[in-house]
Formats: sequence, structure tokens, C-alpha cells
Amino acid sequence: MSHSSPFSPGEKGLRLRTFQIIFESDTRSGKVFDIVLISVIILSVSIVFLDSVPHLNAQYGEWFSIAEWVFTLIFTVEYALRIWCLDRPWRYMRSFYGIIDLVTIMPSWLSLVIPGAQTMLVIRIMRVLRLFRVLRLMEFVGEGRMLVQALNRSRRKILLFLTAVLSIITVFGSLIYLIEPPEAGFTSIPKALYWAIVTLTTVGYGDIAPITPVGQFISSIMMILGYSILAVPTGVFSAEVIRAMRTEQESEEACPGCGREGHDKDAHYCKDCGTWLDEETEDPRLKEDNVDQDK
Amino acid sequence: MSHSSPFSPGEKGLRLRTFQIIFESDTRSGKVFDIVLISVIILSVSIVFLDSVPHLNAQYGEWFSIAEWVFTLIFTVEYALRIWCLDRPWRYMRSFYGIIDLVTIMPSWLSLVIPGAQTMLVIRIMRVLRLFRVLRLMEFVGEGRMLVQALNRSRRKILLFLTAVLSIITVFGSLIYLIEPPEAGFTSIPKALYWAIVTLTTVGYGDIAPITPVGQFISSIMMILGYSILAVPTGVFSAEVIRAMRTEQESEEACPGCGREGHDKDAHYCKDCGTWLDEETEDPRLKEDNVDQDK
Amino acid sequence: MSHSSPFSPGEKGLRLRTFQIIFESDTRSGKVFDIVLISVIILSVSIVFLDSVPHLNAQYGEWFSIAEWVFTLIFTVEYALRIWCLDRPWRYMRSFYGIIDLVTIMPSWLSLVIPGAQTMLVIRIMRVLRLFRVLRLMEFVGEGRMLVQALNRSRRKILLFLTAVLSIITVFGSLIYLIEPPEAGFTSIPKALYWAIVTLTTVGYGDIAPITPVGQFISSIMMILGYSILAVPTGVFSAEVIRAMRTEQESEEACPGCGREGHDKDAHYCKDCGTWLDEETEDPRLKEDNVDQDK
Amino acid sequence: MSHSSPFSPGEKGLRLRTFQIIFESDTRSGKVFDIVLISVIILSVSIVFLDSVPHLNAQYGEWFSIAEWVFTLIFTVEYALRIWCLDRPWRYMRSFYGIIDLVTIMPSWLSLVIPGAQTMLVIRIMRVLRLFRVLRLMEFVGEGRMLVQALNRSRRKILLFLTAVLSIITVFGSLIYLIEPPEAGFTSIPKALYWAIVTLTTVGYGDIAPITPVGQFISSIMMILGYSILAVPTGVFSAEVIRAMRTEQESEEACPGCGREGHDKDAHYCKDCGTWLDEETEDPRLKEDNVDQDK
Repeated sequence: MSHSSPFSPGEKGLRLRTFQIIFESDTRSGKVFDIVLISVIILSVSIVFLDSVPHLNAQYGEWFSIAEWVFTLIFTVEYALRIWCLDRPWRYMRSFYGIIDLVTIMPSWLSLVIPGAQTMLVIRIMRVLRLFRVLRLMEFVGEGRMLVQALNRSRRKILLFLTAVLSIITVFGSLIYLIEPPEAGFTSIPKALYWAIVTLTTVGYGDIAPITPVGQFISSIMMILGYSILAVPTGVFSAEVIRAMRTEQESEEACPGCGREGHDKDAHYCKDCGTWLDEETEDPRLKEDNVDQDK
Repeated sequence: MSHSSPFSPGEKGLRLRTFQIIFESDTRSGKVFDIVLISVIILSVSIVFLDSVPHLNAQYGEWFSIAEWVFTLIFTVEYALRIWCLDRPWRYMRSFYGIIDLVTIMPSWLSLVIPGAQTMLVIRIMRVLRLFRVLRLMEFVGEGRMLVQALNRSRRKILLFLTAVLSIITVFGSLIYLIEPPEAGFTSIPKALYWAIVTLTTVGYGDIAPITPVGQFISSIMMILGYSILAVPTGVFSAEVIRAMRTEQESEEACPGCGREGHDKDAHYCKDCGTWLDEETEDPRLKEDNVDQDK
Repeated sequence: MSHSSPFSPGEKGLRLRTFQIIFESDTRSGKVFDIVLISVIILSVSIVFLDSVPHLNAQYGEWFSIAEWVFTLIFTVEYALRIWCLDRPWRYMRSFYGIIDLVTIMPSWLSLVIPGAQTMLVIRIMRVLRLFRVLRLMEFVGEGRMLVQALNRSRRKILLFLTAVLSIITVFGSLIYLIEPPEAGFTSIPKALYWAIVTLTTVGYGDIAPITPVGQFISSIMMILGYSILAVPTGVFSAEVIRAMRTEQESEEACPGCGREGHDKDAHYCKDCGTWLDEETEDPRLKEDNVDQDK
Repeated sequence: MSHSSPFSPGEKGLRLRTFQIIFESDTRSGKVFDIVLISVIILSVSIVFLDSVPHLNAQYGEWFSIAEWVFTLIFTVEYALRIWCLDRPWRYMRSFYGIIDLVTIMPSWLSLVIPGAQTMLVIRIMRVLRLFRVLRLMEFVGEGRMLVQALNRSRRKILLFLTAVLSIITVFGSLIYLIEPPEAGFTSIPKALYWAIVTLTTVGYGDIAPITPVGQFISSIMMILGYSILAVPTGVFSAEVIRAMRTEQESEEACPGCGREGHDKDAHYCKDCGTWLDEETEDPRLKEDNVDQDK
């Protein structure tokens, strides 16, 4: 990884070992580290949750504060180790997870300097995002890549679907705003749009609801629409997952003639150059040719 | 596009250029125009939204009014340019988007003539529909066509599903109307039908809800029904999207050697018998063989 | 249809013509009859709906009453014609649609004999079920059959899914009943089960909702469960629709050798007896055999 | 099943017969036993339900108590018979269903010893879980196995999806907690998380709902997100069910003639080259040919 480092050989070995534990997951201690990290993340986020409950804060507030400092120290040491064991720490520090790592330990330290930065403490909740790095390290790489690939390929269709959904919301929301009296809660178009989203997505809080027969008729149409068009993203994504799975089913063998990949598993000849794919047996065309030559 | 136009050559070039910018999207300025248009549409619709909020209207009402006039002028000039640069403007003016274009600039002009046409102003919100034309111009043609095709093919099944849904709503709604007392909100069958739609689509406002045990039992059945039959449109549409994708991927050509169908579109040789698939050109292997024979 | 009927030839012709108009849909007048029938059904059901609205009933009650008698007469004549033009009217009268036809005209006639049979009038709403017969007559036969077939094949899986859903509802509902105080609305287990159904199906009225932290935690698990397991019936049904579609894609040709049906469209040899399927060309094996014989 | 049992031959026959009735389902009496058991389970659970309704308990409490004792006796006898007729009863007693069987009869007996163990009686509701054993015995084995297999294979993707859902809930819930005033019901982060789950899963009770414009805007994004990402588990599971079905339908054998795979399980001849697929028997065509040659 590094050549000409200013570290002594022993220190270099220690750095490599730290790197393997923290950044990789294929050693025993690397796996233990991952599980400890997941536990500490979940625990520290839970403390933030519980600390926000007034009567728990009144009773255990000091304990929560101590626990938070312990977690902050753990995460700070971890962050320092991550920087120390890398040869190009800047690259890590500017990466998505590097920024998350830094941002989620800052609030506690800043609260020492700037008093009353209470709301900033909620930033620590973004620690949950760190879970994804650990999951990525573990065995979920393939699963995640397939989902991301399927999402990526259906991106445009989903975008088109969302444009249609937003148009329906805009048109129906404005219509209801005209029809319903302000007493029903439709005091402005943004409010009516909020209601339209609540209705079309079938959430249905009921804090705002149409009260006139015409308004109820129009919102009925909207509900059935929202209920039915859920089929669109689902259908699109299903199709993409199936396609991604089929790709997995494709043979991983490349053509010995031209190197083309992505043949069906049941293909006998390369679809690009016509070379016989099954290297262990002979191409039946050659046999026929031999017969011809014999004549 | 036009032969024998009354315009001078320079004006004709200008018209063609305007046409390319406004109606097409494959030039650089055409793309810039599309993005500007999307921004102006979203901005102008947002102004209509914000203007409807009482306290914003009180504070910034005049600014909104000025902004609206600016947008009206922009859209009016755009409409005039669209008519000017076409050879058969009538065709455009009678098309769906042509009517939308006109209708969404009318309210502001009409409000000069007919005072108090306040509610008519909401018509300007239909400008969001114009977004689809821009999307169609851009790269979403293929995606949109596939979705529309899949929707089109599942049209009848969806219609049959909706008839079934409406029958369930009618029968269950009437049943609940008989069972529940008017105090629960079921004062008439249309009201009960509205409740049935709110329930079956899993929206569940809670403004009307059954209060008798029998009514709650029947609505429980309805909820489980509504929850389960969502599978029907989803399944039908998924199947159609998958079919549309497969059709897109597979070549419709059969192998001239063995008749095998279902080759990938990028295949050059039959995956079953190795025959060259592209009948219009010669198999490159034959050329190589010829070269070999010449030596 | 009938031989040795007691009708005169002219009357028999009239009966056949009536039969074609009422029961079939492939003549012009048959199609007109279908559309008129759909309109009359929807209109008559709408009248029942509107008649239940108190202020409309107060104002237009008499007109609704007259309209209802007109519809009753139309449906009674139609029922009589259906019986008259059939050779085996009993079969029709005992069929599902025959009973629906009779039951939905009875309330009006019975209201003459038994006064105050007001609630019985709601039975007329079941006329909506007659729509399915008309749809079946029209072009929706194939679509309906495929949906019914897919539903039929996924029947057992859906039943298993529903048993699982009901078990989740029972266990979680009882748990919440123990945890939540009666003040939150969980006054009995049936009430708690009703709440569990409202929650799991994501309807969420909000008329009963947990108020304790533990209750809210448990219902959170339930919501995520209900949200996720919707994938089960959808997945099962999607797969069945796709299978049903593939069956449609199967060749309709039977094997000329053994009569076996259901070959893939790209099959060349019968999968049961090995006969060459493409009757227009010669079996390539025969050619090879000829070559062998020539030697 | 057992050799060297301490039972006399007659008793041994009785035990075997009892075993067949209780544990198996392929005899007539076994089937009758299953149906009786399902009925008794549903009845006994219903009694627990009804007994919890205050006014029913006041009126029929004693009858419910008697019925419960009858059911307890039936289930106790059944449990004793299950132990008696097995050779290795311990294995059954430690199995999942063995524990359920014991646990669900204990409350009644314990209530004799420990008075006031009222809440414990709800444990009897877990009898519903016994239904799955009966279903497994009956014809639902294959269906259940396929569903479980599909769930199993999509396990990781669903887990990844749930982690993403929980992260969205955590981040959005905390955000809303910061934005919304406590008066709207967002008094602590756990409360805000509860609201986030209610919203993202589209349940939407409405007991807590955002009241500020910014809060309503953020929750609108959340609703559309929750509405759209439902496509993920559905798509993943659909794809797995389709794969499971295809695997069930297709033979895993390749054609011995041409190596073609993916034949239907009922195919006898390769659909591509017409070779006889069943290698263990002889091609019937060969026999016919022999007959022809003999003549």
C-alpha cells in the first residue's frame, strides 16, 4: 500500500493490522470489530432517542450525558485510527462516509465551546447511516448491488411516474381547493396539495378531509387512482429485478474465440463470433467437415 | 418543411431556427430552451400556489401579481412564436398541447376584461401538464412509450378489476348503510359509498368509521379484501412490463439455419447452431476461410 | 335449439331473434341492447343511491319513486322475455344471474303487498352484479378468464397468506389488549382485533390508537410487517399472471403425430412423441436418413 | 416404528392407529380428526375473544367458563394421547408445536392453583398457531414450502430494505422533531419515530400530524417515498416467486442428443433435436422401427 513511509517497520505492521480490522471484514477480528461497531452505533443513537423524552431526561439526564461522552470518545478514537492507518487519509476524509464520521462526532465537542447548541445534537442521529458501510463490508455487497442496479435502470420510468403523480396531485389539489370551503381545512393551495398527497399515497391522516358531496366524489376518484397506479412503480421495479436476476443466470464464461461475455447459460455458440463455447467437447460442425473431407 | 412560403429567405431561416429551438430538443439551444421552459413553468405554478396562502398574499400580493404578468407575457410570446414558426399552425392550435398552451395564458388576459374572475386563475395550474411535452421531447420517449404500451395492454384487465372494485364498494357500502346508525356518519348511501372507497383503498381518513360490532366486522373483511386485491392490478401490470421488456430485448428474426427464435438483439450467430444471423452481410468466418484457401 | 316446440314458425323466429338480442352480443341490435342495459342498470342503481340522501328524498322523493317503477317494469319485461325466448327457462332461472335478475325486481313488487319493507329496497343495489354478465358477453371474456385462472391457481398460497395474516392479527391484537388501557379504546379483544386489522392493512382510521410507549412500539412493528408482507400476495399473483400469459404464448398447434398440445412456440419436435412439428417443411432427420440410405 | 416396546401387541396396534389419526392426515379418520381439531381451535379462541367483551362476560361469563374447561379437557387429552402414541415423546415435547400445545393448556390448570392469573389466560390465544401444523399436514405443504423458499432467498434483500426503511424513519423522524412544535404531538424523538413509521407505511392514524408548512412539506416527501419504495420488497419477492415456479416447472436434465436444457418436466423428446430424453428407457420409435424391419 505505501512505499517509503516515515513509519518504522513495527509501526507499519501495526498500521496494516489496524487497517485490516477497521476497514476490512474478512478476518476474525475484523468481524468482531464490525459487530461491536454496529452495537455501539445502535446504542448511541438509542441514547439520543431516550434523552429526548422529557421525563426520562429529567430522571436519567446525567447518565445519558456520560454515556454520550463515552460514545463520543470511542468514535473520536475510531476516526483518528482510520486516518492514522491510511496512506491517503484525505481521500477517506472527503468521502461520503468520512464526512458522516466527522459530522456525527462534532456536535458533542462543539457543545463545549458553543453553549446551548442543543438542537445540533440531533445530528448525531445520522450515525445510523454508518450502518450501511458496515453492511457493505459484510455479506450484503451482492444483494445491495443488484437492488441499486435495478433501481438505477428503472430510474427514468420512476421519474416519469413521479412527474405524473405530482401532476395529478397539482390538478386534483387545486380542484378541491376551488370546491371545498376553507372551513374544511383547505385554506390555501399548498394545504390542498398536502391533502392531495396524503390521499393519493393512501396515508389518509384525516386532519383535512373533504366535506362537500362534490369534494368527496372527486377525492374518491383520487383514492381509486392512487390505489391503482401503485401498480406502476411496482411493475417496473419487479421487471428490473427479474432482468437483473436473469443477468446473474447468464454464463460467466467468456467466448474462447472473441472474449464476448454475457451468453445465456444454454448457448452453444458465441452469439458474436459463432465459436463453439463448450471447450470440453468438440464442435459438431468440425465432425461434419471431417466427414466431408474424407469423401 | 414549407415550399412557396410568403416569407423572405432570411425570415424563413429564422423561422426554421425558431422551430428547432422551440419544438425540437436535439440542438444545444433547444436543450437550453427546454430547461428554461421547465423552470419557468414550475416557477409560475409555484407563484399561483403561494399567492393562495392568505398571509403571503397579504404581504407579497403585489409582487406575485407582477411576477404573474411577467410569466403571462413570456408564455404569450412563446405561444405566438410557436404559431409563427409553423407552416400549419392550425394543427398545433387544435392539438392537446396547443389548447393547454392557450388556456393557461387566457385567465390573466381575461381578468383585465372581466373583473373578479379570481377562481379562473387556478386554471393556470394546468401549466404543469406542459411538463409532459418537454419530457417527451427529451430522453424519456422510450420509457414513456413502454409504460403507455404496458398500460394499454393491461387496459381491459384493469377495467375489469375496477368494475369488480366498484361492485364490492357498492354492495359493502349499502350493507354498512343498513347496519350502522346515522350517528356514525352513514347518513345516506352515497356517504356510505364514500366511506367504502376510503376503506377499500386503505386510505382510512377516520372521519366516518363504523361503531357497531357487526359494522366493524364487515369493514374488517373489506379492509383485508382491499389489502389483498391490490395484488391484481400490480400483478397484471408487472406481467405486461416484463413482456414489453422481453420483446424489446429479443430479436424478432429467426435463425436462417435452424429456425431458432428468441435471440438477443445483439447476437450475430445463432446460439443453437452457430449460423450467421445477419442475412444482409456475409459471415466473416467465410472470408477468413477464403483467405485460408488462397494461401 | 328446440325441435317440436309448441310455437308457430313466425313466433319461433321471433323467439330466436329475441334470444340473439338479449343473450348474445354479436349482432348490432345485441350490442345496442347491451349498452342500453348497462345504462339502465347504472341509472337505476344511482336512483337508489340518491333516494337515500335525506334532503334529495324530501325534494324529489316522488320522482325517484316513479323512476323506480319505470325501471322495475323494464326489468320485469326483460325477465319475462328471457324466460319466454329460452327452450329450457328453468336452467336460466336457477342460474346465478337468473336469481340475481329475479331478486332485484322483487323488492318493488313486494313493497306493494308488505308495507314498510323499506330496507329491502337496498337489495336492488345488487343490480350492479348484473354488469358482469354484460361484460362477459362483450369482449372481456378472455381477460376475465385469465384473471380468474391466475386467481384460481394462486388460491392456496393466498389462503395460506390469509391464515398467516389472521394469526398475526390475533396474536398482536391480544398483546395490545393486555398492554393498552381501556381508555385508549381497547375495551375487549374483538375491539383490539378490529384495531389490528385496521393497522395491518395500513387503513389506519385512528379511531382507536395505542397511547402507551410499549403499545406504540408493538404497533410500529405491526405496521412495518403489514407494509412488507403486502409483497406476498402481489408476488404470488404476479407470478401466476406471468405464467398464464406464457400459456397464451404457447403454440395452439397440436402435434400431427400424437395430438399433444401446449408446445412452446419455438419447439420443432413434439415433446411427447418426437414428431417434427412444422408441417410445411420436411423433418431434417429424414434428409439425413435419405443420405444414409443412398450410401 | 418401535421394536421392543413394553406394550402388548393389541396396545401397540392401538398406539399406531392413534398415531395415524393424530399425526398423519392420509387416512379418513385422520382427515376427520384434522377438521374437528381446526373447529375446536377456532371455537376455543373465539370463546376467549367473546369472554373479553365486558357485557358478554357479565351475561354469559359462566357459560364461557364451562366451555373453556371443556376445551381444556379436550386439549389435555389430545396432548396426553400425542405423548402416549409416540416412541420418543421427548422429541415432540421439545419441538415448537409440542411447546405450543403445552403452553396453551397450562393457563386454565394454573388458574386453579394461582388465583387471579387472569391476564395469563390470553396465552390460550396462541392456539391459533396450532392451525399451521394442521395446514402443514393437509395439502398445503408444497405451497408453503415454495413461499418459505422464496422468502428465504429474498431474506437478505428484504433485510437491506428494512435497514434502509429504518434509516429513513430515523432521519426524517428526527428532522420533524426539530421542526414541529411539541403541541403537534412531537414531544420526543421516539414519538416522532412512531409518527414516521405510521406515515411511511401509509397507515396514517392522524393522532399525530405535522401542523407547520415545513413539517407538512417534509412529511409529503416521506409519504411519496413510502408509497414508491413499497415497490422494492414487492419486486424482490415477485422475482423470487417467479424463479421458484420456473425451477419447479423445468426439468434439470439436458438433452443427451444436443445438450439443450430447460425442457418442461413432462417432455419426452428434446424440443430442439427430437432426441428421446428419458435415458433409462428406450425410445418407442426405435421399437416401431424394429417392428418395421422385422416385416
